[in-house]
Amino acid sequence: MRTALNFAVLLLALGLCESLQRGYVGEEPEPVAEPSKYGSLWPLPQKVQISDVSYKLSSSNFRIVDGKLSYADPSCSLLQDAYRRYFDYIFGLTRKHGPKSGRTGPSELTELQVWITSPDTECDGYPSLASDESCESLSFFNIQLLDLIYYIVFILFPLFLGLETFSQLVYEDEYGVKNVNSSEINDFPRFAHRGILLDSSRHFLPVQVILDNLETMAMNKFNVFHWHIVDDPSFPFMSKTFPQLSQKGAYHPYTHVYTPADVKKVIEFARVRGIRVIPEFDTPGHTQSWGKGDFPCENLLTPCYSGSKPSGTFGPVNPILNSTYDFMKQFFKEISTVFPDAYIHLGGDEVNFSCWKSNPDIQKFMTDHGFGQDFSKLESFYIQNLLDIVTTTNKGYMIWQEVFDNGVKLTPDTLIHVWKGNQQQYQKEMANVTSSGYQTLLSTPWYLNRISYGQDWQEFYKADPQEFNGTETQKKLVIGGEACLWGEYVDATNLSPRLWPRASAVAERLWSAMDVTDLGDAWNRLSPHRCRMVERGVPAEPLFVSYCPREYNGV
Amino acid sequence: MRTALNFAVLLLALGLCESLQRGYVGEEPEPVAEPSKYGSLWPLPQKVQISDVSYKLSSSNFRIVDGKLSYADPSCSLLQDAYRRYFDYIFGLTRKHGPKSGRTGPSELTELQVWITSPDTECDGYPSLASDESCESLSFFNIQLLDLIYYIVFILFPLFLGLETFSQLVYEDEYGVKNVNSSEINDFPRFAHRGILLDSSRHFLPVQVILDNLETMAMNKFNVFHWHIVDDPSFPFMSKTFPQLSQKGAYHPYTHVYTPADVKKVIEFARVRGIRVIPEFDTPGHTQSWGKGDFPCENLLTPCYSGSKPSGTFGPVNPILNSTYDFMKQFFKEISTVFPDAYIHLGGDEVNFSCWKSNPDIQKFMTDHGFGQDFSKLESFYIQNLLDIVTTTNKGYMIWQEVFDNGVKLTPDTLIHVWKGNQQQYQKEMANVTSSGYQTLLSTPWYLNRISYGQDWQEFYKADPQEFNGTETQKKLVIGGEACLWGEYVDATNLSPRLWPRASAVAERLWSAMDVTDLGDAWNRLSPHRCRMVERGVPAEPLFVSYCPREYNGV
Repeated sequence: MRTALNFAVLLLALGLCESLQRGYVGEEPEPVAEPSKYGSLWPLPQKVQISDVSYKLSSSNFRIVDGKLSYADPSCSLLQDAYRRYFDYIFGLTRKHGPKSGRTGPSELTELQVWITSPDTECDGYPSLASDESCESLSFFNIQLLDLIYYIVFILFPLFLGLETFSQLVYEDEYGVKNVNSSEINDFPRFAHRGILLDSSRHFLPVQVILDNLETMAMNKFNVFHWHIVDDPSFPFMSKTFPQLSQKGAYHPYTHVYTPADVKKVIEFARVRGIRVIPEFDTPGHTQSWGKGDFPCENLLTPCYSGSKPSGTFGPVNPILNSTYDFMKQFFKEISTVFPDAYIHLGGDEVNFSCWKSNPDIQKFMTDHGFGQDFSKLESFYIQNLLDIVTTTNKGYMIWQEVFDNGVKLTPDTLIHVWKGNQQQYQKEMANVTSSGYQTLLSTPWYLNRISYGQDWQEFYKADPQEFNGTETQKKLVIGGEACLWGEYVDATNLSPRLWPRASAVAERLWSAMDVTDLGDAWNRLSPHRCRMVERGVPAEPLFVSYCPREYNGV
Repeated sequence: MRTALNFAVLLLALGLCESLQRGYVGEEPEPVAEPSKYGSLWPLPQKVQISDVSYKLSSSNFRIVDGKLSYADPSCSLLQDAYRRYFDYIFGLTRKHGPKSGRTGPSELTELQVWITSPDTECDGYPSLASDESCESLSFFNIQLLDLIYYIVFILFPLFLGLETFSQLVYEDEYGVKNVNSSEINDFPRFAHRGILLDSSRHFLPVQVILDNLETMAMNKFNVFHWHIVDDPSFPFMSKTFPQLSQKGAYHPYTHVYTPADVKKVIEFARVRGIRVIPEFDTPGHTQSWGKGDFPCENLLTPCYSGSKPSGTFGPVNPILNSTYDFMKQFFKEISTVFPDAYIHLGGDEVNFSCWKSNPDIQKFMTDHGFGQDFSKLESFYIQNLLDIVTTTNKGYMIWQEVFDNGVKLTPDTLIHVWKGNQQQYQKEMANVTSSGYQTLLSTPWYLNRISYGQDWQEFYKADPQEFNGTETQKKLVIGGEACLWGEYVDATNLSPRLWPRASAVAERLWSAMDVTDLGDAWNRLSPHRCRMVERGVPAEPLFVSYCPREYNGV
């Protein structure tokens, strides 16, 4: 029986001689990483007690089983798949298993009992903002040692979270034996919406890249995949209603598209990991690739003018034609059936007014509607119509902050996505949005595509979505945040190491208690967490000078 | 017969509608990439004429063969291996080959004849600075169409360069048929020393990562692998003479070391690609990991003092003990046999004097030798002794600029490696070094570990090692440069996409003529070059919004 956690092997130890010289890069020295009293738990659970009493795990004997009083449905393959996945994580997918020993010692843990406490096991259901909110009161789970048996109690979707936590408690001793210490953990997420945005328009992301990322999201307890699926450069989403959109708008109509089967695969892969998929179809700006599709440019996009003549280029969606709204009705009707989540992200950001201004038909429309020269009124007119259309599909919507800033009338359950400005500006925006009674989520400080030299994870870690001037009621309207990896400089070649473990810093901010802010302890836990991801096959880049017992070998 | 090159498929085309909105990142718009008249050649050869006359290549019929008058030795497997490698590159390793057609059309190219013009085929030899210099006059190679047969003439080591160039001339038409246009190319490198520095101490780099990088270096015509093999954090080099150095100094004595067999493998893999391997064993600073090995710290490294007592920490190599020099003699004797290249990099950078200052024995030594308080004199004393030791092994040496700056007496063939300061400072340093008659190479503007947001390859591309105030004689002393990827934030998970294609910008600067500086044409060639690397299995990251016909699928 071992009496101390041992993660030190993962970390750089330079105790013997002088501290590390790093004059090449001109930075302040980094403290040598020390084992955290929380081991390698990431994100840190709300309440953790890890005792000194440890128990061995044997791959021959250890089993993850349904608890006696669990509501688990034996026919729910989702559960069995999760058990197998975490068994593999714990014992190593590639490690050889020894012969079955047939007997267990007194200090061996042989079962992890999973108790589903809700009769509605949701085996075929989808995670939702609501189910995640309920998680805050219901997903309480408890890991205790009882007669050499750990048990965990939780409802279905957080099950994955609990298995992840359990797998993070397991560590290897110096003989390679897997150990877990008797622990008590009560956990729930601080925010219900913990997302990652990937951009499959600026560069096409093969489906496998997206699946790999979902797998890693689950390891970090992210629960929303914000799929920025189309944008100016390309339209890889294959629509059944308007197949020309991707036939003309994708980089290539066969090799660079997401077929309906691909989309289903992504959604199902996410679902069984407790992750929601929220697609973004951004209009009226960011739509150049739409103009190549079913409609010629002049029908869906606004023809820009140079003086009195069309210049041959096109601007945002044309908001003055009935055909535009007919198109949107049919298009979003399809989208609402393809994506099961209750929310769709409608974009609405960065509408460039110069093309609208140049167009005489638009000018006339402005005059007729009494908009004067205020083009944000025209934008609002468009968005208002679009929101009405989407509302008829029974979906809620998320929109970028400009839609709110421009005073568009929104339904009360609209989620306002804050992404602009510096710290002072986004904090003011969060205050404005919530004082208007809207729910909001933050991305501004988490644009992970913006790289810089050094340990930028610390800046991501420090940002807090509830840090702004506002009442308790306002703070409660903050439902979470998203780390964004825009695609200008990212594709399959570099997505994973660019995202991980930098996004892990955001994961802990969105999951753990507000006062979990100790950078030193974070470093001590994040270092082994990144090595764990590497060992599970994720090319998560190093935080700093260090090594992992098992380096990445997927190159 | 096609009359135009067609690389356009590789590049982003947004012709139809308004130019790309990229407000997310707040940058100036990028011109849409256009086919270059030089196709996808990278780095650009010295003289290129690509005609409109194209010929088909068939994987069934096409052969790379020894020319009739070639001095090629049929028993030289190096040649046959190169033929096979480039055949695979040209036709795609994973593509299915059609049935052998048995007949060739009139516009088909069936043979690439390789003519080795030197009777010394160097099949078992190593590339060297000398052979590369001779390349400038002898490696002239010529690609012409003659009776439907291309021929190439060159000596052995540049053979790989010529095959690479040929493979870059091949392109796919819209039916997937491989084509090559009748061309005339005369080529030689502008600089003889075109290097990449990798750091295997701050993070251990598995051998496969190093081999993959050598493969990609060859695609970019780099010819020196500067292996910064040990440093403060770890000592992964396994010495036969002092096995304790890696047993104690490596991150792990078995999983994080380079065995003699590993080192041999790296050197041979490099050799058959025309790449030299220059190891760096940096002293007297950057040696913390050395202190853990054969000698206790107090014997090899300087004990630091806090007041009148040893503090328990250790500084640079102890320059006042005879045992230090006995150690270095034996150590570098081994190194000189392990690494066949004529040069060893001895480091000598960033010596921190504070520990030496604190030590009373060192102080006494300084007084005895009349050094006063000028610790650079002590550093020079050490380096001088070291250089004498290395000279007895018949190796030349490279050193970082500080050794020159501190006035150490150097043999005339010493290479001074410039790495410090801003542009003005490094240009002044290059002027100083060359006016003193020393050969030099530049790295300052090419610290590729220093990442920033955006297209930083353009800055690497603009820097020129001969741009400083100096005579023609001085300019000729500039033998090249090295792109450095220091390892603080780099390991197997992110090395390739961080290095490529950013290092490709340096490759062209060091290979092509001085006046090849058109950023637009560079962009037009580098984009398809990066897609070619991706297709060959290299996770080379995107330059900007774009796509490749065959995206990276190695994730």
